[in-house]
Amino acid sequence: MKVLQMIKKPYLLFLGDAPDPLSAKVAQGIRDWRPEDCIGQFRMEGCKADIKLQDVTIDDAVKAGAKTLVIGVANRGGLISKEWTSVLCKALAAGLDIASGLHNQLSDEPELVAAAKAHGRDLHDVRIPPVQYPIANGKKRTGKRLLAVGTDCSVGKMYASLALDKEMKARGMNSTFRATGQTGILITGEGVPLDAVVADFMAGAVEYLTPDNDPEHWDLIEGQGSLFHASYSGVTMALVHGGQPDALVICHEPTRPHMRGLPDYKLPSIQDVREVGLRLARWVNPECRVVGVCVNTSAMTEDEAQTYLAGLATETGLPCVDPFRHGVGPIVDML
Amino acid sequence: MKVLQMIKKPYLLFLGDAPDPLSAKVAQGIRDWRPEDCIGQFRMEGCKADIKLQDVTIDDAVKAGAKTLVIGVANRGGLISKEWTSVLCKALAAGLDIASGLHNQLSDEPELVAAAKAHGRDLHDVRIPPVQYPIANGKKRTGKRLLAVGTDCSVGKMYASLALDKEMKARGMNSTFRATGQTGILITGEGVPLDAVVADFMAGAVEYLTPDNDPEHWDLIEGQGSLFHASYSGVTMALVHGGQPDALVICHEPTRPHMRGLPDYKLPSIQDVREVGLRLARWVNPECRVVGVCVNTSAMTEDEAQTYLAGLATETGLPCVDPFRHGVGPIVDML
Repeated sequence: MKVLQMIKKPYLLFLGDAPDPLSAKVAQGIRDWRPEDCIGQFRMEGCKADIKLQDVTIDDAVKAGAKTLVIGVANRGGLISKEWTSVLCKALAAGLDIASGLHNQLSDEPELVAAAKAHGRDLHDVRIPPVQYPIANGKKRTGKRLLAVGTDCSVGKMYASLALDKEMKARGMNSTFRATGQTGILITGEGVPLDAVVADFMAGAVEYLTPDNDPEHWDLIEGQGSLFHASYSGVTMALVHGGQPDALVICHEPTRPHMRGLPDYKLPSIQDVREVGLRLARWVNPECRVVGVCVNTSAMTEDEAQTYLAGLATETGLPCVDPFRHGVGPIVDML
Repeated sequence: MKVLQMIKKPYLLFLGDAPDPLSAKVAQGIRDWRPEDCIGQFRMEGCKADIKLQDVTIDDAVKAGAKTLVIGVANRGGLISKEWTSVLCKALAAGLDIASGLHNQLSDEPELVAAAKAHGRDLHDVRIPPVQYPIANGKKRTGKRLLAVGTDCSVGKMYASLALDKEMKARGMNSTFRATGQTGILITGEGVPLDAVVADFMAGAVEYLTPDNDPEHWDLIEGQGSLFHASYSGVTMALVHGGQPDALVICHEPTRPHMRGLPDYKLPSIQDVREVGLRLARWVNPECRVVGVCVNTSAMTEDEAQTYLAGLATETGLPCVDPFRHGVGPIVDML
């Protein structure tokens, strides 16, 4: 693999002045999935988030080996505040790079750019594609690939892929989580910010992200959008055709009243996603099959979740799990 | 959407060192639909394309009144070679503007920028999106829309849409050709360069291109790629979901041995495109139907074409025509 982002680890996770725990979900994701890469958390006065890492100063983090300060919190009002800038400049002076998935780019902040230059540090805006991706060639690649596809956006596709990676590694299987969104890129330190790639190069970017590999190696490709989401389905299509998946895992959130951001659209059924996803995927990989369903049951009681999953398993003939509650073992058994 | 109306006509069409006739489809399209705007063609050594215009030198083109050299040849990846740059600099010195739809921007070529500045000429990169498009909202719009979908890239989708527009106007119907690629944009002077739009905004760009209109007005949306083309299917998907078509016309080239640029892929069948296209389109417009097939029979004799089209009509139950040879009347009868 060539340069995708190459964010240096380990990280100091910057929580800033987070107004609530949810606003620090990027930091929480990194802490949940790559605790070994986290030196500690840095919180400013008034911070309402706590991801249960040691609070460390910038200097102590550097002494402990931290290489990059990762902005793990959404900024208020879409601005990088003076208070933040002051801390971030100190971090650059102390020898840390900075990585961010914010809409506002670090590279648009003159103070940060000047400080990074003065101290020889890097600013990583992970929403910006770091290289010119090729046009997809559709050629069969060695190694195996699994893609998470969803009935909607934000139904747990990243979580499902990370859980599969963890379970496969625990079983001694050879696997790599392949990030396609900013949180995933910050978690792994590399990936493709697919929703920011120019249309013609989307599928090529996915091919670039998942190159030839050992025959038994699995790339676990983070999904984006949904084949049925009117705003983002083109991105999902590029993942299906660029990823050439051997396996699809369908992700779903059963209590959602309509598709995310589209009040006029109900969610498609799992059967819809299965039929259309397989039809499209088999065009580039005739061996592709659906190996399971990952359901986000966080809005259900444990009993409701069990009943729902059992019914879905009967209906689909597939392993149906909530990866957070029950793990993804039954799906890995299918691979 | 009037960004290109500043491009001065008439044109000198630059075919460069085109490796085959198909790679000059930009020039061919302008020549076929706006011959009155073309002074002639300019070909370099080794050029394998000929669009049957007079070969003229740059100086003769200028003397004949040409205002703009249009790069009418599309290379994979859109590279601007040293040999091209030399010719283009001569054109600028001779008093021509340059217009290009290549991925690589003229404005990124220092030699061209310097020559344009020195001679007071304009460089037009028609592929650069002129505005920040919105994210698609999927809402139903007034007016009607027809989308051309293909079994492959470069099978005549733009021709079909332009022919439909011409036929509908001849019948006194209310219609607009909506360009989504560089040739269409150069022909009409406006449109969305869809393959250069950032992934998240593709479907929104198509909604922007085809806004609310009179109830009986038809937008004839130029298709791109194919739902079955591994490199570009995401772009096609965005057209289907952003366009919310009431009608699909399937475009096909029956003699092609494999998909364009993808030697490992045969073309899908018309039935494949019909089934998948309708399934996806009906998600955003349940009334969508396939109203005809446009076949590029340029590689067939007239007899072969007639036999093929008659057989296809029987097989599909749809009007099947070559829009260039026979017009699209039977398809417009369906609307």
